[in-house]
Amino acid sequence: MSERFSTDRRSLIQAAAASAALLAPGAGLAQSSRDSDREAIRRAVEAGHEESVRRIREWIALPTIAAEGLNIEEGADHMARLATDAGFTGVRKVPTGGVPAVFGVLDAGARRTVGIYFMYDVKQFDPAEWSSPPLEGQFVDVAQGRAIRGRGAVNQKGPEGAFLAALHAMRAAGRRPPVNIVLLAEGEEEIGSPNFKNVFRDAEVLAAMRRADGVIIPSASQGANGSVTITLGAKGIIECELVASGERWGRGPARDVHSSLKAQVDSPVWHLVHALTTLVRDEGNTPAIDGWFDNVRPLTERERALVAESARNRSEEEAKRLLGVQRWIDDLPWRESLERLVSQPTVNIEGLVAGYTGPGGKTVLPARGVAKLDLRLVPNMTVEECLTKMRAHLAARGFGDIEVNMSGGYDPTETAEDSNVVRAQQAVLTRSGIPYNLFPRSAGSWPGFVFTGDPLRKPAGQFGLGHGSGAHAPNEYFLIESRDPAVGGLNEATMGYVDFLYEMATI
Amino acid sequence: MSERFSTDRRSLIQAAAASAALLAPGAGLAQSSRDSDREAIRRAVEAGHEESVRRIREWIALPTIAAEGLNIEEGADHMARLATDAGFTGVRKVPTGGVPAVFGVLDAGARRTVGIYFMYDVKQFDPAEWSSPPLEGQFVDVAQGRAIRGRGAVNQKGPEGAFLAALHAMRAAGRRPPVNIVLLAEGEEEIGSPNFKNVFRDAEVLAAMRRADGVIIPSASQGANGSVTITLGAKGIIECELVASGERWGRGPARDVHSSLKAQVDSPVWHLVHALTTLVRDEGNTPAIDGWFDNVRPLTERERALVAESARNRSEEEAKRLLGVQRWIDDLPWRESLERLVSQPTVNIEGLVAGYTGPGGKTVLPARGVAKLDLRLVPNMTVEECLTKMRAHLAARGFGDIEVNMSGGYDPTETAEDSNVVRAQQAVLTRSGIPYNLFPRSAGSWPGFVFTGDPLRKPAGQFGLGHGSGAHAPNEYFLIESRDPAVGGLNEATMGYVDFLYEMATI
Repeated sequence: MSERFSTDRRSLIQAAAASAALLAPGAGLAQSSRDSDREAIRRAVEAGHEESVRRIREWIALPTIAAEGLNIEEGADHMARLATDAGFTGVRKVPTGGVPAVFGVLDAGARRTVGIYFMYDVKQFDPAEWSSPPLEGQFVDVAQGRAIRGRGAVNQKGPEGAFLAALHAMRAAGRRPPVNIVLLAEGEEEIGSPNFKNVFRDAEVLAAMRRADGVIIPSASQGANGSVTITLGAKGIIECELVASGERWGRGPARDVHSSLKAQVDSPVWHLVHALTTLVRDEGNTPAIDGWFDNVRPLTERERALVAESARNRSEEEAKRLLGVQRWIDDLPWRESLERLVSQPTVNIEGLVAGYTGPGGKTVLPARGVAKLDLRLVPNMTVEECLTKMRAHLAARGFGDIEVNMSGGYDPTETAEDSNVVRAQQAVLTRSGIPYNLFPRSAGSWPGFVFTGDPLRKPAGQFGLGHGSGAHAPNEYFLIESRDPAVGGLNEATMGYVDFLYEMATI
Repeated sequence: MSERFSTDRRSLIQAAAASAALLAPGAGLAQSSRDSDREAIRRAVEAGHEESVRRIREWIALPTIAAEGLNIEEGADHMARLATDAGFTGVRKVPTGGVPAVFGVLDAGARRTVGIYFMYDVKQFDPAEWSSPPLEGQFVDVAQGRAIRGRGAVNQKGPEGAFLAALHAMRAAGRRPPVNIVLLAEGEEEIGSPNFKNVFRDAEVLAAMRRADGVIIPSASQGANGSVTITLGAKGIIECELVASGERWGRGPARDVHSSLKAQVDSPVWHLVHALTTLVRDEGNTPAIDGWFDNVRPLTERERALVAESARNRSEEEAKRLLGVQRWIDDLPWRESLERLVSQPTVNIEGLVAGYTGPGGKTVLPARGVAKLDLRLVPNMTVEECLTKMRAHLAARGFGDIEVNMSGGYDPTETAEDSNVVRAQQAVLTRSGIPYNLFPRSAGSWPGFVFTGDPLRKPAGQFGLGHGSGAHAPNEYFLIESRDPAVGGLNEATMGYVDFLYEMATI
């Protein structure tokens, strides 16, 4: 066991202490010892606070950005070091065909095993939009206390750092984790995890993850007021570019020409605009792609009840204010708008780029236009099905020349309300006195399908105490020291993971 | 008279010679002296060649770019110096509400007066796309000979420099110009001349231009094979941005939000896309704005005959190759495609900009989208009429919130085939042995309506020998020394203007 806990010189002494503790009477998972374990670990969390903060800030300073090919190997190597330092063994990079995944196992000799999904990449950023350098992880004051501001602070290095801190603290306190842990970290979540599923071509990875009883990704789940929403799944997503060009179309110009020629020459950009409108009804609010709703599963009565409860507990006014929205689609009331949010697939235009995009105008007839789309999928739609249907839909309407270039995406994911992962989350929150509600589905997406779909079919979810904001936006932050007793800082988030692992050991 | 011709010390001597010549027997416009005048001027053109080249290169080095607010006053001052040096008197900047115009008069005591329209601004450029620095005016070899390469070389500083060289040469040869000349130069042609018409609020400018018998803008009209197309007018244009935003719409978000919200929140970009498609039929090939064709004048029989002649004289294959086009709209034959080109109004998308425009994707629901349009107008459409109709069309379909921001534009322009300006052009070309054809209308636009419309109603056109290419594009050039006897260089272009002025004196 010591080989798992002595990965560098510093931890040798800790490992000795841990081994001693493991041999002591009362060590183990018995409920009788749990409270004293927890207290020892809590003290270790506090003692390790500065080190945990340093670990998160160092990680923020090394951004892996798959879209830009930035720090791919460096980020994977750093992820591997973080895992090894935290006690994982056999840590290695796993080829996926894209950015490598990182895999490791922490065998605690326990009965149960928990899978942990990490992402070590972050979203692109523009330093000009930030109030402090986005890689410095500066300390700033936010409403709830003292936070670290930096790219990746909340999405996901802060919460993941809290999870790692939990493992460090257990070791420092001489407590063996109550469950075995399998770690899988990916480095291209932010481009839609195009290759992540390929990790299971590695037999060792697949076998290790098959042993997991459930999977979570660490996440700062507490809202500004401290309450938590436990989601029972998430929509799937297809991110793709639709590209129209004179070259592929065989009409219009092969390169930008003077706009006076429009009376004589077809426009690939108009071609694209017309193709787009065939994809939707109701000014973009309803997908109109042939067969799109064939496999859409309507909300169950239970899901509708959960939405209704959420609508009662959440403030519509605050949601509208935060989003800068005056009206929901079709002027729906709050509850119905939330039902629509969780139940409906979407065809969204993320971006349009064609011709001259600078200030003022330029009299060109562009040879090429690009629409960047993201399509959210609900159960039981699949990426493969939908991509095929979109291409067939376009071809049937004379738009078969338009390229559909998928850059990333994955199927919807669902985890049952009575699964161990969800019950363990509820137990931790109840124990901590944190109000929570269940929500049928996140309208956003994460690659949980890798775990909930074939071949694993494990319960999987996002979980963690703690708070932060600004994912994908400037001035992203993660709360470190909370002044608000209702909201957890880094130490409380760390203890949340300790508690979660103990719950998973027995639930 | 000497005060008009002695604007600096260098020209004092020339002025003395000129005065002497004017007193000599046979001076004046009599046909008997014209050939000897022409020969003297031709020698002066040759003698002044290096100076003319230097003048054009210096001008290229000072780009005025209205879209960027670059060298506005500097460019106007330089234009004024060029005019004064060439013999114009009372040269001054005229406020227009935008970039100033420059005005001057050359009173030759002649019976006839010619108006000359200059533009002293140039199109934006990106040095990275050029083979030599775009402001250096380097000498390069092109198919027809030695050319100057630089921004503005052919559009329009080269041809305008040739016109100025004609005035310098006449003075150096001691010949008074055969016509009085009124110069009006503008500095925001490249953004659609939004304020140029305001020059006529200046009573002196209006009175001077009222005396003109016709107006031209110097232009390098010879194609690669030397032939010239005389256009009898040009389409008008509206350049505008259509801007959709959640703020103005009252639906959708006030700022970009996460794309997962699409199922709950309206999309201003989809709103824009749908508004766009109402503006056209036939995938963008036919305007569908209410009442758009009310005032469209069909081609006359004569205009159709001119198009047919042009179709016979021009190579369809070469046109397709140059444009990178395989098929014309509706697979029309060459002649019909040209008829469509000259006769049809257009709604073209110059550019689309919305949401995330960088590499890959970004899961946002954008709060704002912009379509950059240019709409070409044919007689007898007007900018005011069309702008009103477009706004009404959008409002009638629930798109009244979409801003229509016109950045520039002007009415169509027409000049009769039997006007002095057109007949003088034909006479010069015939005299020079240059093949030409008449064409009803340029599908491009220039602000000739300022002269052909109210209040002046003068014939106006673009004219000049010489050749160049690359207007609005990288590696723009103007031919200086031609190796091809069919194509004029700088000296031939200069003599073309000398001949044109003599023709205008008597036609």
